[in-house]
Amino acid sequence: MNTKGEAIDDVGGDVKAPGLWGSSEEQSVVLDFEVSEYEDRVQRTQARMAELGIELLIITDPSNMCWLTGYDGWSFYVHQCVLVPVDDIPLWFGRGADANGAKLTAFLPFSRLISYPDYYVQNPEVHPMDYLADIIKGYGWGSRTIAMEMDNYYFSAKCHRSLEYQLPNAKLGDATGLVNWLRSVKSDQELIYMRKAARIVEAMHKRAFEVIEPGITKKDLVAELTYTGIKGVDAEGGDYPAIVPLVSTGREASAPHITWDSTQLKKGDVTFFEIAGCYKRYHCPSARSVFLGKPPQHIRDAEKALLESMEKALEVARAGNLCEDIANMFLNSLREHGFDKSQRCGYSVGLSYPPDWGERTMSIRSGDTTELQENMTFHFMPGLWYDDWGIEITETIRITNGAPECLSNVPRPLLVKD
Amino acid sequence: MNTKGEAIDDVGGDVKAPGLWGSSEEQSVVLDFEVSEYEDRVQRTQARMAELGIELLIITDPSNMCWLTGYDGWSFYVHQCVLVPVDDIPLWFGRGADANGAKLTAFLPFSRLISYPDYYVQNPEVHPMDYLADIIKGYGWGSRTIAMEMDNYYFSAKCHRSLEYQLPNAKLGDATGLVNWLRSVKSDQELIYMRKAARIVEAMHKRAFEVIEPGITKKDLVAELTYTGIKGVDAEGGDYPAIVPLVSTGREASAPHITWDSTQLKKGDVTFFEIAGCYKRYHCPSARSVFLGKPPQHIRDAEKALLESMEKALEVARAGNLCEDIANMFLNSLREHGFDKSQRCGYSVGLSYPPDWGERTMSIRSGDTTELQENMTFHFMPGLWYDDWGIEITETIRITNGAPECLSNVPRPLLVKD
Repeated sequence: MNTKGEAIDDVGGDVKAPGLWGSSEEQSVVLDFEVSEYEDRVQRTQARMAELGIELLIITDPSNMCWLTGYDGWSFYVHQCVLVPVDDIPLWFGRGADANGAKLTAFLPFSRLISYPDYYVQNPEVHPMDYLADIIKGYGWGSRTIAMEMDNYYFSAKCHRSLEYQLPNAKLGDATGLVNWLRSVKSDQELIYMRKAARIVEAMHKRAFEVIEPGITKKDLVAELTYTGIKGVDAEGGDYPAIVPLVSTGREASAPHITWDSTQLKKGDVTFFEIAGCYKRYHCPSARSVFLGKPPQHIRDAEKALLESMEKALEVARAGNLCEDIANMFLNSLREHGFDKSQRCGYSVGLSYPPDWGERTMSIRSGDTTELQENMTFHFMPGLWYDDWGIEITETIRITNGAPECLSNVPRPLLVKD
Repeated sequence: MNTKGEAIDDVGGDVKAPGLWGSSEEQSVVLDFEVSEYEDRVQRTQARMAELGIELLIITDPSNMCWLTGYDGWSFYVHQCVLVPVDDIPLWFGRGADANGAKLTAFLPFSRLISYPDYYVQNPEVHPMDYLADIIKGYGWGSRTIAMEMDNYYFSAKCHRSLEYQLPNAKLGDATGLVNWLRSVKSDQELIYMRKAARIVEAMHKRAFEVIEPGITKKDLVAELTYTGIKGVDAEGGDYPAIVPLVSTGREASAPHITWDSTQLKKGDVTFFEIAGCYKRYHCPSARSVFLGKPPQHIRDAEKALLESMEKALEVARAGNLCEDIANMFLNSLREHGFDKSQRCGYSVGLSYPPDWGERTMSIRSGDTTELQENMTFHFMPGLWYDDWGIEITETIRITNGAPECLSNVPRPLLVKD
């Protein structure tokens, strides 16, 4: 085996992106961000690594891979990663068949794209991380302090075990969330994408309000939502959100993560749909609730409690306050209205891949004392789920030094249709 | 903490499903399979566990969780699992907010639904697997031989580390694929669902062929595909497939896992779309390729090579032969036509959740000597990807004692449109 992997044969030797780490005449790809923004992200990551004494970072979260390099593709069902040495250009490591996708989407020079043979794909007898370990040794990093995303969907227990066995001289550590935290404060360009996602989710809600009526099937409603979300607004289409539409109605609305089936929406039921617009993988989630028929008093009471408590909570969602301030204000107000909620009230959002559009860093809940900063973005997510009904009204917000910016503009009250 | 978790307070004490392990007057849920089929699946799993000396199995693959219990919901972005004791009824373990979803979808008695507090959700200070370890000890299983799905997306390195620390007396082992392998041969009811998925993917291709033309944007094409896939056929809607539509065109068609953007399809380019119909989480994947304009000779040659080689390969795709027989026949024929392919030519398919619609057991490739059995189902996946173009024509097949059944009926030749 070539210990430097298949970079030369499979991926070609061109340098693609101009910038600090490469210079190219031929840049055939339109990157979603300036090369300088990617470089800044990598350098901030390397600075944090240096602070923590990490010499090599193995990034398996597709959102972090994309944020660091631009790499995009539905290839995360096989093992892949970005390697960030503390002192050198990152490497993309993935399946041979996906190296062309890396060429087309990542800002990295082609010489930093390393692929493994297809024989390693989902083959119980060999593991791509065994192959990666040889690459790491080939670069002379086998005795480094190496940190991995230990609690990421795409870094299995077996990945860790493989690296433990194959890199006996390395010091292995956990860097779950390291890059996610660096993503908390959004750049201007990121906010542009999130606002485009907001326009898309507005269009999705508008379409839902047009078509929803007693008798419509959940699948027909979701077909409309999805169609609108991908068509997008004007010429700009939407991406697939990291979570499919969650549509719960009637008794099912007690369960927040039910998807859809072919049953009809009925008069007398509350239905909520939690959806997101997605643009260049940046999300603007938003949930609204609909009542078909005349809402009973307990639904009206819950709506009033939610709306008033949201207003109060948003007043404290500003730079300098803490994540938990939002939750505490919301829950105190909710309790004054006679309601309660045991789940967290939101989380940081932005760039993401399935299965989660959250960033898995800050939560809006009691005990999270992270200080809010300008241009952090959250899905403020007040939902009430009881045994036989539920209601959700949510906002994606940008923290400022004053009142938060609600990215999308969708009327909050319960939509009532007869 | 109540070491038996929150079963009683959060989830209620009703017994839902009639059958071996429960008896209920109130069965408010329509399960996708007879309770006896779920029981049979669990018993086959327990028999296999007994053979291997496994006393407790921790199942984190959402597909396996669903196959064993019926549990369905987009909740796999938080830690959850099904525990299968070798000698008792399985337990569902998940987030408190998802316990209602388990009540609504799983065949298990409510007393076997155990949830953890929301405080454990994506909280770096605590881990749901710490909580699970206490549950396991509470049931007296703390010294058992416990096997986990070590190479599953939803069993992170940290999950394993937590259980290692918290269960020092347990003997921990790897059962990656144990349940997946039991799913290889499909039941009659499973095949009914896969054939419904086939009708859906036929409708998707039909719609694609109607709307595709020079100038259509990829996002508009995907919007149509997705709409049709969810609307489904007649009254029966489609589910979300485990992979979004993969649409590659022109130079991008060199990369098999590109999704879509807002660019237009151009004359002179080959475009392929790899899509699946999905019904009750059962998949029928299918890829086809389209040429806008007059195809050049190398595309026609590749098409001819693929079509003829597929025919030959399908002739050996029958019970008693081996997985690799299909690949070898295909690749030999392909080479006779002057083409070659380094990637595997397919994999087992059926029930699945994101990020992969494959079952991650058998692969159609040289070296996989698994014997084909009646009612195994595969995505036979011949795709050719070169540096600046690619072509995919695939079939989902059911193995029989004679010729395989191609589940969907979509014309295979390159669709040519001017």
